[in-house]
Amino acid sequence: MPPDLHLLSPKGFRAAAVHAGIRTASRAPDVGLLVCDALVPAAAVFTTSKVIAAPVKVAREHVAHGRLRAVVVNAGNANACTGLHGELDARHACATVADTVGCDPRHVLPCSTGIIGHLLPMQKLERGIRAAAAARALGSTPRHAARFADAILTTDTVRKTAAAQVKFGGGGARSVARIAGVCKGSGMIAPRMSVNSDALEALGIRHATMLAFLTTDAKVSPTVLRDALARATEATFNAVTVDQHTSTNDTAVILASGAGGARVSSQSDVRNFTAALTDVCRALAYQIAADGEGATKVVTVIVSHAPDEPAARAIARSIADSPLVKCAMHGNDPNWGRIVSAAGYAGVAFDPERATLALQGRIVFRHGQPVTYDERQLSKLLAAREVSVHLSCGNGKSTATCWTCDLSADYVRINADYRT
Amino acid sequence: MPPDLHLLSPKGFRAAAVHAGIRTASRAPDVGLLVCDALVPAAAVFTTSKVIAAPVKVAREHVAHGRLRAVVVNAGNANACTGLHGELDARHACATVADTVGCDPRHVLPCSTGIIGHLLPMQKLERGIRAAAAARALGSTPRHAARFADAILTTDTVRKTAAAQVKFGGGGARSVARIAGVCKGSGMIAPRMSVNSDALEALGIRHATMLAFLTTDAKVSPTVLRDALARATEATFNAVTVDQHTSTNDTAVILASGAGGARVSSQSDVRNFTAALTDVCRALAYQIAADGEGATKVVTVIVSHAPDEPAARAIARSIADSPLVKCAMHGNDPNWGRIVSAAGYAGVAFDPERATLALQGRIVFRHGQPVTYDERQLSKLLAAREVSVHLSCGNGKSTATCWTCDLSADYVRINADYRT
Repeated sequence: MPPDLHLLSPKGFRAAAVHAGIRTASRAPDVGLLVCDALVPAAAVFTTSKVIAAPVKVAREHVAHGRLRAVVVNAGNANACTGLHGELDARHACATVADTVGCDPRHVLPCSTGIIGHLLPMQKLERGIRAAAAARALGSTPRHAARFADAILTTDTVRKTAAAQVKFGGGGARSVARIAGVCKGSGMIAPRMSVNSDALEALGIRHATMLAFLTTDAKVSPTVLRDALARATEATFNAVTVDQHTSTNDTAVILASGAGGARVSSQSDVRNFTAALTDVCRALAYQIAADGEGATKVVTVIVSHAPDEPAARAIARSIADSPLVKCAMHGNDPNWGRIVSAAGYAGVAFDPERATLALQGRIVFRHGQPVTYDERQLSKLLAAREVSVHLSCGNGKSTATCWTCDLSADYVRINADYRT
Repeated sequence: MPPDLHLLSPKGFRAAAVHAGIRTASRAPDVGLLVCDALVPAAAVFTTSKVIAAPVKVAREHVAHGRLRAVVVNAGNANACTGLHGELDARHACATVADTVGCDPRHVLPCSTGIIGHLLPMQKLERGIRAAAAARALGSTPRHAARFADAILTTDTVRKTAAAQVKFGGGGARSVARIAGVCKGSGMIAPRMSVNSDALEALGIRHATMLAFLTTDAKVSPTVLRDALARATEATFNAVTVDQHTSTNDTAVILASGAGGARVSSQSDVRNFTAALTDVCRALAYQIAADGEGATKVVTVIVSHAPDEPAARAIARSIADSPLVKCAMHGNDPNWGRIVSAAGYAGVAFDPERATLALQGRIVFRHGQPVTYDERQLSKLLAAREVSVHLSCGNGKSTATCWTCDLSADYVRINADYRT
């Protein structure tokens, strides 16, 4: 990632964040506003859970037309399990943004994260939105970007941000576009997001969530944007699991201002744009796994030589979701049996006699048999901030990657004491 | 369970257990032998993992004919990931039993549980089998039953045993049959066992496992026995999850001596027998959940009023597998949002607007809305050894039950430090 790029580096965006008091435990910002100078192409993916939060229902409706002007987000309250009242509150938040920014409420996308089963404190939220939307509050500096990124955090311990530049044919300043993003996510992380919204009831339920906000100044059609985001999501956000618990508020949204001048037109432009967007999403997804609740390390699970991509993904996911694998990683234990057996119950074709497993690049299991290795040395290699698990299935050509973290006693502490 | 019944109460069985030194950390028995006086109808279910241990491969072959004479089991070594050598060792163990008992090796079913990737210490195992098979070692007393039950334990903290009597039409002593069982299981518990053995490669991988050994003195055909065990397993063992990690060695086997005289012949006899067997298996399954690694409580998840049984089961399983739900249970936290949201991503039809959730019998969520309740009081109710979670889906008539336990920091400690 180019170190000087941030969420507001793509031209045409401004952001602000304020502390509105929705989050009572800290003085951190809890209301964020991202505004585009004009109504621009946009796309979003949402949780595929059958239980969805009120803002997700409204957001689905608003992004359906492929254009947005602004995004409003609050932390501290998920506006979930709040029934019709919650839905009206989400609509009211959009109307407040529309009123201050000067746009149609349907061009505002709402997001929430925080506790559940409580109505949004609408007075605080409205005051927060108005404060954030004030001309003097909005800006495009790195500080504005950072504050917006902070306003979405809950149990996260670090700000998460990524960006890329993508060049299109032609050369010159007008051939370069920027893509940037920020995200949040630490617990209740197992996004399964899709653009295809079923006609689900509006109802949401939970606190931790993954949210991602992406900006680009490329000129790109809503259709291409949606397709690019869907592809990028599948290989990145949807490949992260902290605790396999899919949230009701998961949302990733991208706005394309077109203000940079670079146009995504040819097939090769689309490929380049999608690849760059995927890079940004992957960097964000990785940061979510690395900042998983209680995590001391991030684990990259690569499954290769599988019969097809769904099979590779199913095996990688089975490994990444296993509490036993995650505990072994926590203990720097090269316990390959847990990994191979997790592949065994993934529900897809897998033959251990053809498989090879490497931990941190060291082969520990090959073709159904253990391989002799220095256990103490490998344990030392596993005592790292980044760990790789590579299972080659030996019965195909497809590859998939998942990211997870170790399972620590801290995860239990964080989640056994969340409320009481 | 009639308090005076044990594994050897059904007539026609003897058992013995010895410490053979396979398990080096303790002096507990580690080789068990269960012998029937004659070749009798038998049935077994095995892990459906694609990665299976050597004894499972041999056991599948041996039970395929529907008759067994003996079962041999060792703890301390899973004989998994041991290739062809491991398979020959499992066969040799059967031959040793056959030699001492005086039967065909193919009438012996082998089981193993313990560490992986190590060859069985065959000298010790053979010596153990011969010691256990000695006429003076074998017996039918409660003490023999208890020692056999102990010989199969690994990280388990308690012996697990259950029994029932079943009456058939006609009356008199010859109309009563006994069914009894012992089992083990604490970690790597998410059995998905089936009688349908695919032609899988013989290869096993892991240490903790669930094993169940069942006896009955009913006179019952191998076909009825297999069907009854399959049905009982689906609703009991296959409904337990400690950590969603399906083992490579999971096995449940039943032998029917016929020595009690009661015959299972009519359709109603079959129903009664299956119901009684299910009761025994349920009691064993419950004990496995209650003794899950690090568990402080057992959680019964009942999903009712679902469109069909698979949907009910999928939702119950999704709830029972969620680390967030299990952490909440550990913290006595009536965090119903985690439960309802886990139902949302089970992959089956679910409408929170029609659902009702009760914790310990107290309704906390109804038709998409939180219900007011005394959080402190409910938290006190959750601070129990037995907790019930009941989700009524409101869109059907089917019910399923799963059993799990809470997720504690001890689970992490046990599994982060298993080997290193």
